[in-house]
Parts: sequence; C-alpha cells; structure tokens
Amino acid sequence: MVKLTVLYTKPSNPQEFDRYYKEVHTPLASKLPGLKKMEIAKVLGSPFGESDYHLIANLYFDNLDNLKSAMSSDEGKVTAKDLKNFTDSPVQMMICEIN
Amino acid sequence: MVKLTVLYTKPSNPQEFDRYYKEVHTPLASKLPGLKKMEIAKVLGSPFGESDYHLIANLYFDNLDNLKSAMSSDEGKVTAKDLKNFTDSPVQMMICEIN
Repeated sequence: MVKLTVLYTKPSNPQEFDRYYKEVHTPLASKLPGLKKMEIAKVLGSPFGESDYHLIANLYFDNLDNLKSAMSSDEGKVTAKDLKNFTDSPVQMMICEIN
Repeated sequence: MVKLTVLYTKPSNPQEFDRYYKEVHTPLASKLPGLKKMEIAKVLGSPFGESDYHLIANLYFDNLDNLKSAMSSDEGKVTAKDLKNFTDSPVQMMICEIN
C-alpha cells in the first residue's frame, strides 16, 4: 500500500481554511479514482510546544500506479488546482510506501 | 483517536539508518504503553521530484492523555533518547487529532 501525505502549514485564517477544507476540498479529494482511505489529522502541536503545521492529510492507494493515475486524472487535476483556493503558504507532499 | 507523527529528514547514510530503525528503534517504540498501531512509511519522493524526507512514522493512541503518558513513561524516554543514535538531522514531531 502507498499513500500521499500532504502537510499544510498554519494558514493565516485557520477557521476559513477549516471550513473550505471540509466543505469543498475534502469532497473533491474523495472523488479521486482508486482512493482507498483518507485520514485527515488536525495538528494540535508538537511535544515541545507549537508546530508549524496545521493539518496533515493521508490518502491511501493500493499501489504506486494507482496513486499516480489518481493524481493525473481529471479529478486529481481539479483537486490539485483547488489548493490555491484555500492555502496561502506552500503545501508539502510526499509519496510514501507503507512497510 | 490521536497520533504522533514523526518526520525524519534524509540521513547521510540511509542504509545504516534503515537498519538501525528496523532492528533497534522500532522494537523500542513498539513497547510504548497504550500504543494502538504504528505505521512506518518510506518516502519515495514528492509529486514534483525529490523530497527532503526519508521516513514518516505514525504512532496511534486512543486519546491525548494516553499519548502523553506514553511519551513520559520510561519506555517513552528510552525511545526518545535513542533518536540521537541514528539521526544526524532534526526530527520533527507533531501531535495530531484524527477527524
């Protein structure tokens, strides 16, 4: 199994970010072909205090081919294009293989 | 449910990192009291090329109290102290609440 991990840094307006993420972005991402599971985690902090991050999303796929197909699909393009509508700082993405 | 997300940046010696992580660090972390699930993911790259990260670990607990208790337990202290034995760059940790 593989996953796409998306790290969102703290937005300037967390309330508006959360609203948009829930109402618009999550429904778009849910339509990705081959998506097996989506885990959305709110960052509460770090063990040492504040964290630079606000949200971490993990999108699971059966294999790397399926993940890549999802990202290059029409749904993937729409989801990626939507990022700029609610983020005002860089978004980090990692493609991971689960051991 | 909550989780501790640990981001490891690329080590200078990935092979030795992987060996130590599997043979020593994972068995230590597995003993954390209250640990429900551990997911270890190898970073293959980013959708845009190379990633700064090498590995992402997610350690799941039933709730925030259990996570904090695990971190302050003897096993937690041993696991945290072990980080310096195989990492040569900063390790980022986030405490997250799963929505």
